Amino acid sequence: MTKLEMTETIMAAKKSSGLGWEAISEKVGLGSVFLTSACLGMNSLKPEPADKLCEVLGLDATVSEALQAFPNKKWDQIVPTDPLIYRLYEVVGVYGETIKEIVGEKFGDGIMSAIDFSMDIDKEENPAGDRVVITMNGKFLPYKSW
Amino acid sequence: MTKLEMTETIMAAKKSSGLGWEAISEKVGLGSVFLTSACLGMNSLKPEPADKLCEVLGLDATVSEALQAFPNKKWDQIVPTDPLIYRLYEVVGVYGETIKEIVGEKFGDGIMSAIDFSMDIDKEENPAGDRVVITMNGKFLPYKSW
Amino acid sequence: MTKLEMTETIMAAKKSSGLGWEAISEKVGLGSVFLTSACLGMNSLKPEPADKLCEVLGLDATVSEALQAFPNKKWDQIVPTDPLIYRLYEVVGVYGETIKEIVGEKFGDGIMSAIDFSMDIDKEENPAGDRVVITMNGKFLPYKSW
Amino acid sequence: MTKLEMTETIMAAKKSSGLGWEAISEKVGLGSVFLTSACLGMNSLKPEPADKLCEVLGLDATVSEALQAFPNKKWDQIVPTDPLIYRLYEVVGVYGETIKEIVGEKFGDGIMSAIDFSMDIDKEENPAGDRVVITMNGKFLPYKSW
Amino acid sequence: MTKLEMTETIMAAKKSSGLGWEAISEKVGLGSVFLTSACLGMNSLKPEPADKLCEVLGLDATVSEALQAFPNKKWDQIVPTDPLIYRLYEVVGVYGETIKEIVGEKFGDGIMSAIDFSMDIDKEENPAGDRVVITMNGKFLPYKSW
Amino acid sequence: MTKLEMTETIMAAKKSSGLGWEAISEKVGLGSVFLTSACLGMNSLKPEPADKLCEVLGLDATVSEALQAFPNKKWDQIVPTDPLIYRLYEVVGVYGETIKEIVGEKFGDGIMSAIDFSMDIDKEENPAGDRVVITMNGKFLPYKSW
Amino acid sequence: MTKLEMTETIMAAKKSSGLGWEAISEKVGLGSVFLTSACLGMNSLKPEPADKLCEVLGLDATVSEALQAFPNKKWDQIVPTDPLIYRLYEVVGVYGETIKEIVGEKFGDGIMSAIDFSMDIDKEENPAGDRVVITMNGKFLPYKSW
Amino acid sequence: MTKLEMTETIMAAKKSSGLGWEAISEKVGLGSVFLTSACLGMNSLKPEPADKLCEVLGLDATVSEALQAFPNKKWDQIVPTDPLIYRLYEVVGVYGETIKEIVGEKFGDGIMSAIDFSMDIDKEENPAGDRVVITMNGKFLPYKSW
Amino acid sequence: MTKLEMTETIMAAKKSSGLGWEAISEKVGLGSVFLTSACLGMNSLKPEPADKLCEVLGLDATVSEALQAFPNKKWDQIVPTDPLIYRLYEVVGVYGETIKEIVGEKFGDGIMSAIDFSMDIDKEENPAGDRVVITMNGKFLPYKSW
Amino acid sequence: MTKLEMTETIMAAKKSSGLGWEAISEKVGLGSVFLTSACLGMNSLKPEPADKLCEVLGLDATVSEALQAFPNKKWDQIVPTDPLIYRLYEVVGVYGETIKEIVGEKFGDGIMSAIDFSMDIDKEENPAGDRVVITMNGKFLPYKSW
Repeated sequence: MTKLEMTETIMAAKKSSGLGWEAISEKVGLGSVFLTSACLGMNSLKPEPADKLCEVLGLDATVSEALQAFPNKKWDQIVPTDPLIYRLYEVVGVYGETIKEIVGEKFGDGIMSAIDFSMDIDKEENPAGDRVVITMNGKFLPYKSW
Repeated sequence: MTKLEMTETIMAAKKSSGLGWEAISEKVGLGSVFLTSACLGMNSLKPEPADKLCEVLGLDATVSEALQAFPNKKWDQIVPTDPLIYRLYEVVGVYGETIKEIVGEKFGDGIMSAIDFSMDIDKEENPAGDRVVITMNGKFLPYKSW
Repeated sequence: MTKLEMTETIMAAKKSSGLGWEAISEKVGLGSVFLTSACLGMNSLKPEPADKLCEVLGLDATVSEALQAFPNKKWDQIVPTDPLIYRLYEVVGVYGETIKEIVGEKFGDGIMSAIDFSMDIDKEENPAGDRVVITMNGKFLPYKSW
Repeated sequence: MTKLEMTETIMAAKKSSGLGWEAISEKVGLGSVFLTSACLGMNSLKPEPADKLCEVLGLDATVSEALQAFPNKKWDQIVPTDPLIYRLYEVVGVYGETIKEIVGEKFGDGIMSAIDFSMDIDKEENPAGDRVVITMNGKFLPYKSW
Repeated sequence: MTKLEMTETIMAAKKSSGLGWEAISEKVGLGSVFLTSACLGMNSLKPEPADKLCEVLGLDATVSEALQAFPNKKWDQIVPTDPLIYRLYEVVGVYGETIKEIVGEKFGDGIMSAIDFSMDIDKEENPAGDRVVITMNGKFLPYKSW
Repeated sequence: MTKLEMTETIMAAKKSSGLGWEAISEKVGLGSVFLTSACLGMNSLKPEPADKLCEVLGLDATVSEALQAFPNKKWDQIVPTDPLIYRLYEVVGVYGETIKEIVGEKFGDGIMSAIDFSMDIDKEENPAGDRVVITMNGKFLPYKSW
Repeated sequence: MTKLEMTETIMAAKKSSGLGWEAISEKVGLGSVFLTSACLGMNSLKPEPADKLCEVLGLDATVSEALQAFPNKKWDQIVPTDPLIYRLYEVVGVYGETIKEIVGEKFGDGIMSAIDFSMDIDKEENPAGDRVVITMNGKFLPYKSW
Repeated sequence: MTKLEMTETIMAAKKSSGLGWEAISEKVGLGSVFLTSACLGMNSLKPEPADKLCEVLGLDATVSEALQAFPNKKWDQIVPTDPLIYRLYEVVGVYGETIKEIVGEKFGDGIMSAIDFSMDIDKEENPAGDRVVITMNGKFLPYKSW
Repeated sequence: MTKLEMTETIMAAKKSSGLGWEAISEKVGLGSVFLTSACLGMNSLKPEPADKLCEVLGLDATVSEALQAFPNKKWDQIVPTDPLIYRLYEVVGVYGETIKEIVGEKFGDGIMSAIDFSMDIDKEENPAGDRVVITMNGKFLPYKSW
Repeated sequence: MTKLEMTETIMAAKKSSGLGWEAISEKVGLGSVFLTSACLGMNSLKPEPADKLCEVLGLDATVSEALQAFPNKKWDQIVPTDPLIYRLYEVVGVYGETIKEIVGEKFGDGIMSAIDFSMDIDKEENPAGDRVVITMNGKFLPYKSW
């Protein structure tokens, strides 16, 4: 079972179950962003949560196995076109140098890891219009000399 | 005075002053991410904070005027190469579809605005290595039918 | 049912029905540009108009469901080649900076939303040759400081 | 005098004059979008309005001559990055096929000219937030057989 | 029937018929360049010649219908690789600015339409080697001010 | 003297002289398209016409020498943006396969040379709007087996 | 039968026959480089060698017909990645300007034809390691004035 | 002295000297293709020929030093536009797979080195038009297992 | 059997066997990096190890034959997106010029062969986190003059 | 002083000093690869080695300051053209998937850090031709769930 077939199988089962990502991830015991990314084929799961997810959605062991496989993370649009995703790309373009300045000032020369990394997405209710709050949390990795 | 000359002038004055972005932005009364982005030419300032910044750094009115000019936001690398900025691009590539799923579930069909938007960058101290915490906060804009 | 299959199903049914986009959208109670974009998979419909459209064209509930799904808006040509679409791209290239100047003067620093947005396409009869009139109407979103 | 030098000269004179594009174009007797595009080097002016513009802004004949030169319309970003301009590019990507459907239905097989073309940009006041209204008006050009 | 299937059907029938493009277009009553472009899916035919073509090649009404559909003109190579087609691309690159100068001198500021346009391809016999003569004839469209 | 400096020098002298490309090329004894392309740096001239051109425009021998140098034909836009030049690119995209079909039928497998090649640009007066007529004439080069 | 199917059919038959390109081309009476390029779909054969090739490999007339069809020469990698092919691309990049200088000096302003062209590939035995010798032979085509 | 300044200095001195690449390379004792490539900044010379070249053209030691520097081989056009150079690119595209087949058959799995490599360019006189003969000679490098 | 089918067949058999690349390559008598690259279709095997591999994994002769075929080394992402592979691309971008300086100083003008080349990947245990050690070993190929 | 001016200053001083990178880095007390990368503007130095380097090469404090500045790591060729650097790019393309397989097997799902990273370049003497040995050593970073 390829990651692509896995995603289609999970999406169909999720729809039938009537469960949302939040509900599923609570049952599995993982964050909803991470769990969703694994179901979309962009991260791998450990055996336990993979089996648990299959149990929740009534899927068999081949899906669990596909969830545990190490993914080759590929995306096909160098500049994403979907407006929601493009806005994030735009934020990187507009604020990239700024982030570099601020991180440099606070931490020294280095980067924020995208591997030792987590992300949360929350809804902030607001009478002027609700707001999306995305929190990225990555380990600072200093450049070392040798 | 072009935005480019403005940035060079501010960077030189900042260095001489010995002040960091945090310190400057506190004196000006704006967030450090926003203020830095304006100094790098990616946002415009209102007259008052523009003048205040020039006062703090001992710069004349042409710099204030340049800070108030509406910028044309251009970046020259479609895929950024600096490792710190690339990691953010990678996050968009790896998690873009995931964010779309989660936002869709929590808010419905729409996007997170990159205009009615703010960002904070914080340092989370951690014995296993400090962590960079980036918080993006953008208004949810629902797609409307007409 | 994917969005692609949905579009093919609708196009075939529309052809059989002999109805045009204007006629269909009047029956459904939505603007013809918006309705067409939803049928082409670039917008989602609310349940009521989705069901109504299926009723008008004699399609079953899976089509309605596909119409309600949140689309991933992808296009595959960075520079469009069809002459009609290219001319619009050319207008953006030729007049982009001009629009920025005029909007800046009339509204201040900000953008026209492409989400809180509507579009109409009209025919202006003219003895020297009829004219296409495209009207875009988007909310002005000012850049905010924070 | 190149078009680039011409634009810089005009922008500086405009700033000194305190006049906006609307005010200048009224004095010159042309639409503000067209006049601005000529000042930015993307269209040429006839001798009379070119001279008039120079009179209004106190510029000499070399500027008028540069305004009358036929421009080579070049833009350097295949995908524009400025958010205001990108949103227009996005509209072309999201609605291009839709516009093709509607124009085909209303006019037959052909295009909207980007040459026999005009554009207006208006402000629609709205308590929920003012709106930008862009109206494009281009001659329909039918494909002919031969 | 898609345009692609239409082209394959026509090419097979043409081969069986033993007729060339010249012969077919004479029977249909259209120029050979235009007719060929329609058969390759890059132009649409009016009902009469579409039916006539199907009669000539012994094809049924679905082919005629496909010929009448308005095509979405797409090509997949930004720089064409076939030597015959590349040479034309090269001519545009080498002589583009020159054509702009000469057209500007003879007609004023404007373009040659690619829509109100026809093309002929002839063979000029020559003892030193026959020559291909391509004649393009497009309406001059002047830029207008507004 | 580089080709670029040569072009600027010639353009300035041409403007002062009040002569058009047609008039100049008649005096020099070459076609206006070819002569213009040489002045724009895309072809080289033989010594005699190079000297003649300099005589006509009152330029010195360094310009003649630059005109005789073999140019490196470079263009910087893979897809041209100027509307006049883009329309020619579009013609290649829309009609490239068609031209290949017709040339194949009339001449056999081979190409139209872009080197043993000439081009004329004429004005066809027409009450419905004058027309640009571009005639390309290139030697047919058959593919040979070996 | 498409060119792609033709190539697959020939490759399978060649493998079964145990014959190499050299042996096949000797039997057919053509050079091995040219014959191979035709079998890979990048050149067309005349009827006689096409039939002869089919006879040698025991293939039927549809293959011969496909070999005679005029190919549309397309390649899908702008920069080739296979090391053997990339090295040739690299040679063009490193020595292109040099070849232009030397050809200019020996022949005048013009090009080496890639159509009236042949190529041989030989093995030069050498105790320090055998060497590949590629000889390209193309007609010089001088630029002409008109 | 950069490689670019070196090339300009050599080109000017070569022109003054009236010597061609053939004549210069004979005096220096190297092949004309290699010598030219070094003068264009795409190869380095050993001290002796570098000094010799400077002696022949009356240039000082800084030029010799620049000739000995190891070049960073960069070219700026991924697809070359000059017709002479493009034809070579086209040959790689059309015949790349063919060369791979023939080299594979004659030598086994491996490549032709572009480093342990030489090239000659000759003129073959021919009453039907002289021919350019380019001979590339590169060491065969077999892929090894380990 | 294509290389792609070969890879899928091997991957399935490897999974069933429970053997890792290290274990398989030891049984076959080749390095694990080289063997893996051959199984992924990026290198060819000699008959003996190809047969041995098939014996180890219980595969038939068509797989062995496919392993012996000379691959066309193609990759489809100019800039790789998988984080593990991107980091290597980044190393080439950040350190490329540095490697050129050091190799130039130690060896003279030339390159490291990617053909007469081997690579090892080792695990260095480290209490602060294990480390990946990649060792590349390629023959130095000096540029030669001719 | 920009990083670019810094590099030029250091390269000139290094040349005058007659010292190589190995010798300089020994005096400074850092590895030659790291030190060279800092001098080329791709890494920053701590104050002590920056001052030490300036002392060794007789440079003033502005150079030391520039060496300590945090670099923005940019490279301008998406696919490098210099043969030495391209070969490394090729290794990433050919062996990227293989490295992913082997690292996955030895370490689990994760990457080799390019930040917590060092590299050595050595010369392995060999009678059949010396060999370049590049050793990369990067911390393994496992993907974590959250």
